[in-house]
Amino acid sequence: MNDLKEKILSENGNDLEKIESELSENLKPYLDLVSDVAHHILFAGGKRLRPLLLVLSAKLCGYKDDYAKTVSTALEYLHAATLLHDDIIDDAVLRRGKTVAHSVYGNAITVLVGDFLLARALAICADSGKIKVIHIISDLTENMSTGEVHQLMRKGDVSLTEDEYLEVIRRKTAVLFQAACTISAVIADAPEEKEAVLSDFGYHLGIAFQMADDLLDYTMDTEALGKEVGADLREGKLTLPVIHALKQADSADYDQMVKIIENEDFTVDEFKTLVGLLEKNDGIAYTQKTAAFHIDKAKNVLSVFEPSKTKDTLFDIADYTLARRI
Amino acid sequence: MNDLKEKILSENGNDLEKIESELSENLKPYLDLVSDVAHHILFAGGKRLRPLLLVLSAKLCGYKDDYAKTVSTALEYLHAATLLHDDIIDDAVLRRGKTVAHSVYGNAITVLVGDFLLARALAICADSGKIKVIHIISDLTENMSTGEVHQLMRKGDVSLTEDEYLEVIRRKTAVLFQAACTISAVIADAPEEKEAVLSDFGYHLGIAFQMADDLLDYTMDTEALGKEVGADLREGKLTLPVIHALKQADSADYDQMVKIIENEDFTVDEFKTLVGLLEKNDGIAYTQKTAAFHIDKAKNVLSVFEPSKTKDTLFDIADYTLARRI
Repeated sequence: MNDLKEKILSENGNDLEKIESELSENLKPYLDLVSDVAHHILFAGGKRLRPLLLVLSAKLCGYKDDYAKTVSTALEYLHAATLLHDDIIDDAVLRRGKTVAHSVYGNAITVLVGDFLLARALAICADSGKIKVIHIISDLTENMSTGEVHQLMRKGDVSLTEDEYLEVIRRKTAVLFQAACTISAVIADAPEEKEAVLSDFGYHLGIAFQMADDLLDYTMDTEALGKEVGADLREGKLTLPVIHALKQADSADYDQMVKIIENEDFTVDEFKTLVGLLEKNDGIAYTQKTAAFHIDKAKNVLSVFEPSKTKDTLFDIADYTLARRI
Repeated sequence: MNDLKEKILSENGNDLEKIESELSENLKPYLDLVSDVAHHILFAGGKRLRPLLLVLSAKLCGYKDDYAKTVSTALEYLHAATLLHDDIIDDAVLRRGKTVAHSVYGNAITVLVGDFLLARALAICADSGKIKVIHIISDLTENMSTGEVHQLMRKGDVSLTEDEYLEVIRRKTAVLFQAACTISAVIADAPEEKEAVLSDFGYHLGIAFQMADDLLDYTMDTEALGKEVGADLREGKLTLPVIHALKQADSADYDQMVKIIENEDFTVDEFKTLVGLLEKNDGIAYTQKTAAFHIDKAKNVLSVFEPSKTKDTLFDIADYTLARRI
């Protein structure tokens, strides 16, 4: 799988380099502290998946201008803004193996730098001159904030259904992928049917991405994950592996799982027992299968586009999304 | 002064009523909890000064459509969003005599509902179809967040200068008044010179508003103020009455003031001593005079507009801003 990652990175080296320099150049805060906090979150080994998706989707629509790379930074700023606000919410300790911003700089600065990054994203999108891009960004921000509230409201509730989970991850994750792909069509002045196709592609990719991400919490160790294993569960975040396993389990397994889930201070051994029960009750395999279903969907909708190197890369990204290990 | 407030309220009753109903109608979150938190901050006795300024400025530019009232809600949503985020930052307890949102609902929900309100503001502005409005909103959000960071960075620092204070209140307060007045000119398709005039009007009004607000902390009692007296100082916020008094004081007064300022747990008696020293060293009178200077400026720039009932109301608002007691 690392081969696939290397392939994507090397084949898109020029674009990624340009995205990286644009990310620095468009930041321009007047205070060093704002710059420090923004850098803390922005340059911590992020994969630039969302900006790259925008740039590649735009190419797929025949867009040739370098400007796509500039607009693409807006997506990364928005993503970073939500990470800053989310880490406060989750009271997380580590992200990508690094101490989270609010532990270093405090909640207040972190909230405000999140707002600043949102404003930068907006300014960059306004520079596109296209009001449709702004509508996409406002919908996105609305969805992401309410999706997070929804998740918080249902915190630790073992009655969370798969449909509700899907709605939460659509709002909190998939809309950003969807926005990246849709904005590319808008700036490329692509016909509406292509815009709709790219929107679907982004949606399915985003859903699969979040499902794969949710799986990592149960399949990786802390060092590889860059954050504490079992963190989702400790925060009361019930994800598909758990939701499906609870649904499948007999009453003995169900009770044992619920007991571990409802104890915030579960031990490493208890967590291992839970993972065993998730495997036994099809939680892991079902989530992998469902994520794979969405990746298939994502690839299939792209059939309206002619074969091309760019399309191949988007397929590679789709495969990587599903099978990534970090 | 309450007479002036009553006069403004009664003369603009229809507009204010329409603004009020638009504030409810444009909110539309899909979760009741989001609605509850938004209502907590939005319908807590706010004066709707910023939306009213937008509506009146638009009228001054000859704009007749009801749509100004819809756009004006964006300013109130933005204002409410910053209040939600600021109250977390300040760890405030009361606002307008009411328990602050984050004490009732928790930090996490409060950050997210702030983001939601920002998104709603953006969606409403995008509906105007004018990209210039979006540029104003992104500048505004950037200024407000960095202004707050600036204030936080200089927390409790008695070397804060008047120029620096002015820059902080421009960013954290005046830009919102300025945006309200400038957006009105944009939606009214007014010529650029009128837009510039209204921008100046909003700027000076906003600066005076914040100075008058900062004075209240030293001239009102807790009940009338709706929040704890001396709260600014306890949060380490040095405002013009203090900055100017420190500059004017002899070394004995200076030392006594600094001793009180630097002790977060100052007593009511110590606070009274400080207020006496602010008075003695011209801090109160100088701030009143400077605020009055900005109100004069605000009124003067409006001279390019013909006399009208609307202009009279804007003058009333300017006078009220200066002399308001709550």
